[in-house]
Amino acid sequence: MNCVGFVGLGIMGGPMAANLIRAGYTVTGFDLVEESVKRFTEAGGQAAASVADAVAGADVVITMLPDSPHVEEVALGPDGVLENAKPGTLYIDMSTVRPDTSRRVAEAAPARGVRALDAPVSGGEKGAIDGTLSIMVGGEAADFEAARQVLEVLGTTIVHVGPAGAGQTVKAANQLVVGGVYALVSEAIVLLESSGVDARKGMDVLAGGLAGSRILDLKRETMINREFKPGFRIDLHHKDMGIAVAAAREAGVALPMTGLVAQLIAAARAQGHGSLDHSALLKVIERMNR
Amino acid sequence: MNCVGFVGLGIMGGPMAANLIRAGYTVTGFDLVEESVKRFTEAGGQAAASVADAVAGADVVITMLPDSPHVEEVALGPDGVLENAKPGTLYIDMSTVRPDTSRRVAEAAPARGVRALDAPVSGGEKGAIDGTLSIMVGGEAADFEAARQVLEVLGTTIVHVGPAGAGQTVKAANQLVVGGVYALVSEAIVLLESSGVDARKGMDVLAGGLAGSRILDLKRETMINREFKPGFRIDLHHKDMGIAVAAAREAGVALPMTGLVAQLIAAARAQGHGSLDHSALLKVIERMNR
Amino acid sequence: MNCVGFVGLGIMGGPMAANLIRAGYTVTGFDLVEESVKRFTEAGGQAAASVADAVAGADVVITMLPDSPHVEEVALGPDGVLENAKPGTLYIDMSTVRPDTSRRVAEAAPARGVRALDAPVSGGEKGAIDGTLSIMVGGEAADFEAARQVLEVLGTTIVHVGPAGAGQTVKAANQLVVGGVYALVSEAIVLLESSGVDARKGMDVLAGGLAGSRILDLKRETMINREFKPGFRIDLHHKDMGIAVAAAREAGVALPMTGLVAQLIAAARAQGHGSLDHSALLKVIERMNR
Amino acid sequence: MNCVGFVGLGIMGGPMAANLIRAGYTVTGFDLVEESVKRFTEAGGQAAASVADAVAGADVVITMLPDSPHVEEVALGPDGVLENAKPGTLYIDMSTVRPDTSRRVAEAAPARGVRALDAPVSGGEKGAIDGTLSIMVGGEAADFEAARQVLEVLGTTIVHVGPAGAGQTVKAANQLVVGGVYALVSEAIVLLESSGVDARKGMDVLAGGLAGSRILDLKRETMINREFKPGFRIDLHHKDMGIAVAAAREAGVALPMTGLVAQLIAAARAQGHGSLDHSALLKVIERMNR
Repeated sequence: MNCVGFVGLGIMGGPMAANLIRAGYTVTGFDLVEESVKRFTEAGGQAAASVADAVAGADVVITMLPDSPHVEEVALGPDGVLENAKPGTLYIDMSTVRPDTSRRVAEAAPARGVRALDAPVSGGEKGAIDGTLSIMVGGEAADFEAARQVLEVLGTTIVHVGPAGAGQTVKAANQLVVGGVYALVSEAIVLLESSGVDARKGMDVLAGGLAGSRILDLKRETMINREFKPGFRIDLHHKDMGIAVAAAREAGVALPMTGLVAQLIAAARAQGHGSLDHSALLKVIERMNR
Repeated sequence: MNCVGFVGLGIMGGPMAANLIRAGYTVTGFDLVEESVKRFTEAGGQAAASVADAVAGADVVITMLPDSPHVEEVALGPDGVLENAKPGTLYIDMSTVRPDTSRRVAEAAPARGVRALDAPVSGGEKGAIDGTLSIMVGGEAADFEAARQVLEVLGTTIVHVGPAGAGQTVKAANQLVVGGVYALVSEAIVLLESSGVDARKGMDVLAGGLAGSRILDLKRETMINREFKPGFRIDLHHKDMGIAVAAAREAGVALPMTGLVAQLIAAARAQGHGSLDHSALLKVIERMNR
Repeated sequence: MNCVGFVGLGIMGGPMAANLIRAGYTVTGFDLVEESVKRFTEAGGQAAASVADAVAGADVVITMLPDSPHVEEVALGPDGVLENAKPGTLYIDMSTVRPDTSRRVAEAAPARGVRALDAPVSGGEKGAIDGTLSIMVGGEAADFEAARQVLEVLGTTIVHVGPAGAGQTVKAANQLVVGGVYALVSEAIVLLESSGVDARKGMDVLAGGLAGSRILDLKRETMINREFKPGFRIDLHHKDMGIAVAAAREAGVALPMTGLVAQLIAAARAQGHGSLDHSALLKVIERMNR
Repeated sequence: MNCVGFVGLGIMGGPMAANLIRAGYTVTGFDLVEESVKRFTEAGGQAAASVADAVAGADVVITMLPDSPHVEEVALGPDGVLENAKPGTLYIDMSTVRPDTSRRVAEAAPARGVRALDAPVSGGEKGAIDGTLSIMVGGEAADFEAARQVLEVLGTTIVHVGPAGAGQTVKAANQLVVGGVYALVSEAIVLLESSGVDARKGMDVLAGGLAGSRILDLKRETMINREFKPGFRIDLHHKDMGIAVAAAREAGVALPMTGLVAQLIAAARAQGHGSLDHSALLKVIERMNR
C-alpha cells in the first residue's frame, strides 16, 4: 500500500498529495493544469502522463475532482481508473459528487477487481494543507479499514458512515445545514440592524445560547463587517446544494428548507458573488430589503 | 432596591422569584394561579392580592407573562404596573413579547416616573431554576446599570443590546435561528435515514465540523431516538415565531427563511405536537415524507 | 332601510357612497379627511360631525376603513358604531380586516341590538366606481338577506360564504392566491428572459393552457413591459398578506406557500415599491437575480 | 414530407401517431412495449424493428419519450435518430426534457444533415387524442415552418417561442406555474375549511375574480370533493419540476417559489400519491395540518 496514484492536484488535491509524499508514500499524480503538476513535482511527486499512467502501478488511487461528470469520466471512462487499475487496487474518490455517481462507480468496480470508496471531505483548503480534514466514507467496512492508514494522513476525523454513496449523502447533509445556518444568521443580522439594535452585541448573545453554532463562532464578526473575502466559494456551495437537492430527489424525500436555501445560494451567484465566501449569503438577504 | 414586586409566578417566574428571595430580596408576588402563589409563599415570598398590591411598595417590578396582550394589560391597564408603581420604580418586563409592545410600555413609563426595560431570557426552566439565564436587555443604559444587580441573581449572561424593544428583537432573532436550525437538522436526519445511511454516525460528523451547533451537541441523540419529551414546547416556539414574523414586519424587512420556519412550526402544532419539545420539528419533516 | 350611515369615504368608500346616493338612499357620511367629505357632499351626501352622528339615525351602517385597529375603534370604541346605533340597525363592515376582528364585532353587536356582517370586497377602485364589486359576506343568513338590496347597489357578485368572519377569510384566501400567482408568473418571466426565450410568446402559450389565469390575461403584457403604474398597491397587498398569515395562524393551519408569498411582497415594499401595482412583484424576482 | 418515423407510442405518442395516420401520413413506429405497438398497427401504422428502422426512410421523425436520458439515447446513441436519419430529415422531439438536452441534440444534428426542433406539448392524453395539444417549439424559424403542417395535425396552438431548447423552457415555465397554482388553491381550500367557511362558495368567489384561473375553473369542484383520479400524474409533474429547477439552474437564476413547489410535489410523491392527478397536492397541504 505504498504507491498512490493521485488524480486532481488542485487547491485541495495538491496539498493532500503533498501530505502523502511527506508521510512517505510514493505518489504518482495527474492533472490537466500544468501549474498544478509543477507544484506537485516540486513537492516530490512523480508526474504521470495520463490518468491511466497515474493509476497503472498504484496500490491506492485517489481522485479529487470538481464535479460528478469529471468523476464519471475519470473513474468509468475508457482511459479511466477502473479500466487501468491493477486488480486489488483500492480506489478512493474524495471529490464531492452526487451519491448516485459514487454508487455507479462502486457497482462497476468489482468487475475490475477494484475496491471503491467515496470519501468526500470538509475543512477546506486549510484542512487540506494541515491534514486536518473531516472525511466521510461510504463503502464496504473492510475496504474502509484498508484505507484508514492513508486517510489518517489527510484528516483527523475519519468516519465510516455507511455503504457506497453514504459519504456523499453525509457531505450533502453537511452542506445543506451549513448553507441554511448562514441564511438564518443573515436574517438575524438583517432583523437586528434594521431594528436599530447593536448587531454585534445581539449576535454575541445568540452565540452563547441554544442558537450557538460553529458558524456564529467563526463568522459573525466578519459577516457584520461585511468581509466576504474568498473562503469557501459561493460557486462551490451552489454546486453542493445542487447535489443536496439531487440526493433528496434520489432518496425520494421532500426537504422544504433545503429547497429554499438552494435558491438563496443560487441568488448569491446570480448577483455576481460566486467567488466570495459562502457567508456572503448575507448580501442576498440584504438585497431583498433595499 | 431591596423590595421587588413580581407578577407572573409560573414555570419561569416561580423559580426566578425564589432565586431573588434566596439572594436576600423582599419579594411580593402576584399570580392568578393559586398553586403558583402557594409555591411562592412556601419559598418565602409575600403574596399580593393584586398587581397593584404587588407593585405598590416595590423599588423594582418584574413581570414574567405569557404574551403581548397580558403585558399590555398588566403594564398599561388601569390596575396595572405603571398606574400603581411609585415614582422612581424600575420596571423590568422579562416576558417574551413583540418589540412594539415593549416600546409602547417604554413610551408610557416616563409620564409615571417609571423607568422601563425589556429583558427577555433564554435558557428555559433549568436556567430559571439554576439562575443561569441569558438575559437580553433593551432600554436606557443608566436603567440597565441600575438593574444589573437584580438581573445577576437571575442569569449569567446579561447584555444590554440597545434601546427599548431591542431585548425583544434579539430574542426574536434567537428564536428564528433556533427554529431554523432544528428544521435543518431534521432535514439532514431525514435525508440520511431515507438514504440508508447511519444517521447517528452522520450527525456526529456534522457536529464536529462547520455544521456544528449547540443544538447538534445537545439534541442530535434524542432526535435520532425520537425522544421529544416536554422541553421547550412547540406551542411556545410557535408563539415566538409569531413574534419574529411580526418584528420583521414592523422593521419593514422580508425574511424568507423565517417565514418558512414559522409555517413548519405551525405545522408541528397543527399536527398535535404543541406540548412536545421544539426538536419535534423532525416529526413535521418526517410526515411530509410518508 | 333608506337611511345609510357611511364611515370611511376614501378611494373605495367615496364612490361606493356616491352609488348609494345615486340609487336613492339618504347617506350620512363621516371621514377624517376634509377633501373626502367635500367630494361626498358634492355627490349629494350629508356630512356628519362624528361617527356617532353618522350612525345615530341610520337603518344601515357601512364602514370602509384601512385596517383592523381602525375597525376595532370605529365599531367597538366609546364613540363608535355599536355604542351609538339604534336597536335593529344593520351594520356592514366592508373593510378588509382580520377575521377575528370581524368575529369580535359580531359577538359584541347583539348586546346593542345590532346585526353585524363582514363584507369585504374585491374589484378595486374601478369596481367601486362602476358598482361591480365582488362582495364576500360573513354573518347570519337572515342578516345577509336584509343587506342584499343595499349590497346590490355596490356589487355584482354577492355571496354569503359563512358565519361571522367568513367574508374576511374568503378575502384572505383570495389575496394569497392573487399574490402567489403574481409571484409564479414573475418567476416564469424571469426564467424565460434569462434563457433567451421570447417571453411574450411564451406567456401567450401559458395563458392559453392549464397555466392560464385572470392575471395572465390582464397583466402579462404590462409585466413584460415593466409597467407597474399604481393599480392595487403593494402596500395594500402587504397588509392583506399580513391578514392571510394571521388568519392561518388563528385557524391553526400551516400554509407554506402563503408564508413565502408574504415575504416576497414584504421584499417589494422594503425595496421601495409600496405604491406600485402588485404585479411589481416581478421586480423582487428580478432583483434576486442581478 | 409524407413519411413519418415515430418513436414512443405510449399514452401520448400512441394517439398522436394515430392522428397522423388518419391525416394521411405514412407512419412507421417503434416502441419497446408490445402492447403499444399492437395498438399502433391496428390504427394503421407500420411497426418498425428498431429506432434505426423507424427512422431510415422518414422525412420527419417524431419522438415522444419519458425523460432526458431516453431522448439522449434515442437521439444521440449509436443506434439512434441522428445516426440513422437520411440527410434533410426534420427531427421533432416532442418529449418534455431538460432544455440542455434539446440544445445538445440541436447542436449534434447539423453534422448529420438533420434539422432538429424541440416541441413539448401540454394538453394531456385528451389533447393527444383530440389533436388539440398546445405545442411550444424551439429551433430555427425555417425548420418550424417546415414542421407546421405536421404539427397542425397534432395540436391547435402551435407557437415558435425561440431557439433550440426554448420549447422546453416554456414548458418548464408552464409546469412551474401549474404546480404553483395547485399549491396556492390547496392552501386556500385548507384555510377556508379549517375556518368553518363553505369552501365551495368561497372558491366560487375566487374563481370569478382576479384570483381566477383555468385550474380553479376545471378543478375546484373535484379538489373540494377529494377526487384525484388519475389525470396528469404527480409522478410526471415531479419529473417536470425537476426539469424546471434544472432549467433555472442552467439559466443561472434563483426562483424561490419554484423551489418550494418542487418540494411540495416531491412530498406528494413521497406520501405515495405518485399516480394521482396533480391536484392531489391538496393532500400534502392537508397532511401538514393534521
